[in-house]
Amino acid sequence: MSGANNGRPFVVRKFVRFSHCDPAGIIFYPQYFMLAHDCKEDWFREGVRYPFEQMITADRRGFPIVKLDAQFMRPSRLGEELSFEVGVRAVGATSLKLTYRCVCGDEERMRMHSVLVMTDLDKGTPLQIPDWLRERFASFHVGEHP
Amino acid sequence: MSGANNGRPFVVRKFVRFSHCDPAGIIFYPQYFMLAHDCKEDWFREGVRYPFEQMITADRRGFPIVKLDAQFMRPSRLGEELSFEVGVRAVGATSLKLTYRCVCGDEERMRMHSVLVMTDLDKGTPLQIPDWLRERFASFHVGEHP
Amino acid sequence: MSGANNGRPFVVRKFVRFSHCDPAGIIFYPQYFMLAHDCKEDWFREGVRYPFEQMITADRRGFPIVKLDAQFMRPSRLGEELSFEVGVRAVGATSLKLTYRCVCGDEERMRMHSVLVMTDLDKGTPLQIPDWLRERFASFHVGEHP
Amino acid sequence: MSGANNGRPFVVRKFVRFSHCDPAGIIFYPQYFMLAHDCKEDWFREGVRYPFEQMITADRRGFPIVKLDAQFMRPSRLGEELSFEVGVRAVGATSLKLTYRCVCGDEERMRMHSVLVMTDLDKGTPLQIPDWLRERFASFHVGEHP
Repeated sequence: MSGANNGRPFVVRKFVRFSHCDPAGIIFYPQYFMLAHDCKEDWFREGVRYPFEQMITADRRGFPIVKLDAQFMRPSRLGEELSFEVGVRAVGATSLKLTYRCVCGDEERMRMHSVLVMTDLDKGTPLQIPDWLRERFASFHVGEHP
Repeated sequence: MSGANNGRPFVVRKFVRFSHCDPAGIIFYPQYFMLAHDCKEDWFREGVRYPFEQMITADRRGFPIVKLDAQFMRPSRLGEELSFEVGVRAVGATSLKLTYRCVCGDEERMRMHSVLVMTDLDKGTPLQIPDWLRERFASFHVGEHP
Repeated sequence: MSGANNGRPFVVRKFVRFSHCDPAGIIFYPQYFMLAHDCKEDWFREGVRYPFEQMITADRRGFPIVKLDAQFMRPSRLGEELSFEVGVRAVGATSLKLTYRCVCGDEERMRMHSVLVMTDLDKGTPLQIPDWLRERFASFHVGEHP
Repeated sequence: MSGANNGRPFVVRKFVRFSHCDPAGIIFYPQYFMLAHDCKEDWFREGVRYPFEQMITADRRGFPIVKLDAQFMRPSRLGEELSFEVGVRAVGATSLKLTYRCVCGDEERMRMHSVLVMTDLDKGTPLQIPDWLRERFASFHVGEHP
């Protein structure tokens, strides 16, 4: 259950940009899901080494979301630098469970759990996650209860 | 627990727009939260009759989100007309619990529960929900388990 | 050069939404292009009667943009109701020239000219605009210098 | 008319992300303006060394856009790495003229000229660009006709 990343999450740093912020001067909450998606995209490129242009454009596979829950602890403000983490909670036959944490300094700002299903984008049907991909996911396994 | 809307949710119709869709031709999931926010904004304007320009710009109050959970049953495609519902599960001293459902024809596409807290936008502190607003919310009360 | 709409532009009304606004409380300017695109989409559906799900999903045709210029006269604020107009300046063999105006009350907020080219979305090559579509565009012809 | 950057534009690299792409699999054109804005934000932080959180949040100054023109030469696709350049064409008493170029490999994808006005965000009135800021802009001067 470890490997290249020794069971640690993938981490990427993101600024709170002008385009993320609302008239109250803080992140407009749907932008957290845009940022989490960017983080997942960075993880597939740099961590899993299966970039979206290969997976989606060439192989016509995707990971649409089935469900999620999220908590928003404190607001994030224009110009703050956020540390976004994504880790694997579990890998099923066709499903992938992820945990995201967004932290600024010592302060947790957002936490999300999501469940995705690997899907044939042309047929819209679930796909078995191949072993080579399952192994790459496993090296970012952070356990069920982070 | 009823009133102007007799305990039914507020309903608004939205097209799946080009700008909502991803390279797979379906709604990019963070756009569901953008749409749900638009639906809430329409509800405040037309249902609750406390439009955002009054609440946010003039009164400097808001309802930031504290947590949410969502399920995505089936994908929604470019040009489909969605029926978005928002109803009230509970109103606390400072908090508001909402349920959203997104339906296309007979098919449920998305369901979300969220918890919001009324907040002083300048101080960032919780505010008591005033009685007149509590009464307006109550007329859209749909119960704890829709 | 006239027809169903007698040479008047297509008009649609849009609220300035929370999601459009920036930390300065006014529309974040790229959102004007999102709104103009929504306006064009509404025009294709209701005015031209060639909705995007038919044109893009079924017929695999599109109108990507080649160039545009825009002026921003005054800022637009949360909750304002904008009148968005789209009219045709010229229709070429494969190209379409449009003018957009965005007005709030008596005050012009934004004006844009754009040039689009009808394109085969699978091959990426220009397409002749068919006569039936050319005729529908012509009824929204507003002249070269609005 | 040169300085720290010797009259070269500021350059930042951006991936074409899933969230930028439309059902045709290419950048949805309003996203170019989002990307150009991010590029300007990076330039203010790293090049001009006057980050937005200082300028907007603390000093309550901004640079709203007055006009722009843009050309879109070729589409950009999911996963491509774009080189975004921003340079200064001219600095007036209160105005700033910028040129943006977006290039992928040897291929130019987008070019934009914009005119901004330095503005007091609370009063909405133009502000004289202070000398220290004028000097920092000047080191990214690329001439009137790039």
